[in-house]
Amino acid sequence: MSETVPTLSFDEVVDRLLQRKEPYQRNYRAMYSSWYGGIITDPALMMVPIDDHLVHRGDGIFEALKGVDWRVYALERHLDRMEYSAKMSSHSLPLSRAELTETILATVRAGNLADCSIRIFLSRGPGGFSASPYECPESQLYIVVTTLQTPSPEKYARGVSLRTSAIPVKNDYFATIKSCNYLPNVLMRKEAEDAGVDFTVSIDEQGFLAEGPTENIGIITLNREFLVPRFDRILRGTTVSRAMELAESLLDAGDLVRMGEMDLTPEDAYHAAEMMMFGTSFDVLPVVNYDGHRIGDGQPGFFARKFRELLREDMHRCDEMITPVRGA
Amino acid sequence: MSETVPTLSFDEVVDRLLQRKEPYQRNYRAMYSSWYGGIITDPALMMVPIDDHLVHRGDGIFEALKGVDWRVYALERHLDRMEYSAKMSSHSLPLSRAELTETILATVRAGNLADCSIRIFLSRGPGGFSASPYECPESQLYIVVTTLQTPSPEKYARGVSLRTSAIPVKNDYFATIKSCNYLPNVLMRKEAEDAGVDFTVSIDEQGFLAEGPTENIGIITLNREFLVPRFDRILRGTTVSRAMELAESLLDAGDLVRMGEMDLTPEDAYHAAEMMMFGTSFDVLPVVNYDGHRIGDGQPGFFARKFRELLREDMHRCDEMITPVRGA
Repeated sequence: MSETVPTLSFDEVVDRLLQRKEPYQRNYRAMYSSWYGGIITDPALMMVPIDDHLVHRGDGIFEALKGVDWRVYALERHLDRMEYSAKMSSHSLPLSRAELTETILATVRAGNLADCSIRIFLSRGPGGFSASPYECPESQLYIVVTTLQTPSPEKYARGVSLRTSAIPVKNDYFATIKSCNYLPNVLMRKEAEDAGVDFTVSIDEQGFLAEGPTENIGIITLNREFLVPRFDRILRGTTVSRAMELAESLLDAGDLVRMGEMDLTPEDAYHAAEMMMFGTSFDVLPVVNYDGHRIGDGQPGFFARKFRELLREDMHRCDEMITPVRGA
Repeated sequence: MSETVPTLSFDEVVDRLLQRKEPYQRNYRAMYSSWYGGIITDPALMMVPIDDHLVHRGDGIFEALKGVDWRVYALERHLDRMEYSAKMSSHSLPLSRAELTETILATVRAGNLADCSIRIFLSRGPGGFSASPYECPESQLYIVVTTLQTPSPEKYARGVSLRTSAIPVKNDYFATIKSCNYLPNVLMRKEAEDAGVDFTVSIDEQGFLAEGPTENIGIITLNREFLVPRFDRILRGTTVSRAMELAESLLDAGDLVRMGEMDLTPEDAYHAAEMMMFGTSFDVLPVVNYDGHRIGDGQPGFFARKFRELLREDMHRCDEMITPVRGA
């Protein structure tokens, strides 16, 4: 019988990959693949084996970092979190920390962008299609460097809108792991776009504020307290964590009177002086509207701007937080 | 500066793919990829783009079917469930049901195995590395045909062991979707292998029996009732569902007095006459030990054997449940 679905030879597939040029692939600058054993810059080959359990089970962990002006920001913090995620999901890193760092930097160099997004994926590896991690002989590491997508200046100047999510949260255990099981986060991202707001924020089973699809939230109370949801139920964001460290100077100066993790309700946020989102790609964004409530005076506030300034300064000046892409 | 991580050309990657022969790849017989636009049989190219959100977010759904004696079993049931998973996670099928069926059968024909495993993945598609589904212009479909892995005859003859899992369950919403967010299932599978038992079974927040990593459970009470956990909190397995339909004949014959979904505790199972696991690849396996408790008389029972007989008969004789691989 004749087949309506063509069978392709190896060469035909390679030809099709070479022919396929998608506009979004222009953003992809370099990929390291342990499966290939090196770095490639042609987006056509930025692929992974379908039997890698990362693909069919989401059995992998990841980190998203950024490069700023030829420096990788907060690399050690991200690698620390990656080690935590690995431990919590029984993954082991196939490289030493020094080798991993060198591989990341080599990929960033190959990407050849002063500012970039860097994504690191640690997978269970190929070996079959069951759920068992024991059928996979070795973990794989994939690193992708792309152009950095940032919000328009208007978002910083006018603020963003937020809505409470209807998507059920992950349980505490899995919420603290940056794994590739992000379907709830994907549906929250979709929910925001469908509702015409910038972000949605999830609420845990007890009614407390949790997190955005890939962002942390924080509020400044009318009493000048900087409060964030407790990190034992959500992903410990590197940006918000660093912002809290940098905000110590604001405590010292008396601009803030208190800072900490706390169970926060949407009501707490509705009546806050300021509310903000924290994320690797955009640093800090002021929230001016949450569930239709005007936050503060409806304008971006002092602390959102100040936190961003502190972070931007940190990215350029704090030796401890930056790793030069081109070596010493 | 010299690079310790090599940069590879397109041709070098293709050469490395061709050279890389892993023993487990022998099980992979055919893959359809909408990204390639056809079917390939060379495992080296059984790959997917890393920017497909299936890879980096687990943003995809799947089904695992089997081919038995050149027939695909329960195809319509699996496609029905796939449509449900798609709806619940806002995916849309890029093909009509008829086209999808034809593509599956063509891939099975290319795999050229009388008995096989068939895995269907519907992904959000490539387009970038954010969580937003809206950056992906089109969904992709991947179908993989492999050799069928089945338990040793001893497992049927002597029974299997089961233990209560310590891994937290997914919430109800996500538990009913067959998505590629399977990290909890992966950790349950690992837990079983680490503990030296055949399977573990999860317990929901209320303390009721839920499901195995990729299997359903059922019990036969001392009163000859066939009871399974409620499907509103777990994945509705195709095998257990079909077993329940076929078991109607056992109700009619008076072998069973009742059948249904119910909140079941581990205690209920400890004191059951029989306990069994249901799954696509193995049909039905008798559980003879659960948490160290001997189930029934510690031997595989009548109903586990009978359910399997009914299912095997169904696979060979029920026109409504089988789809010939080679057409009419």
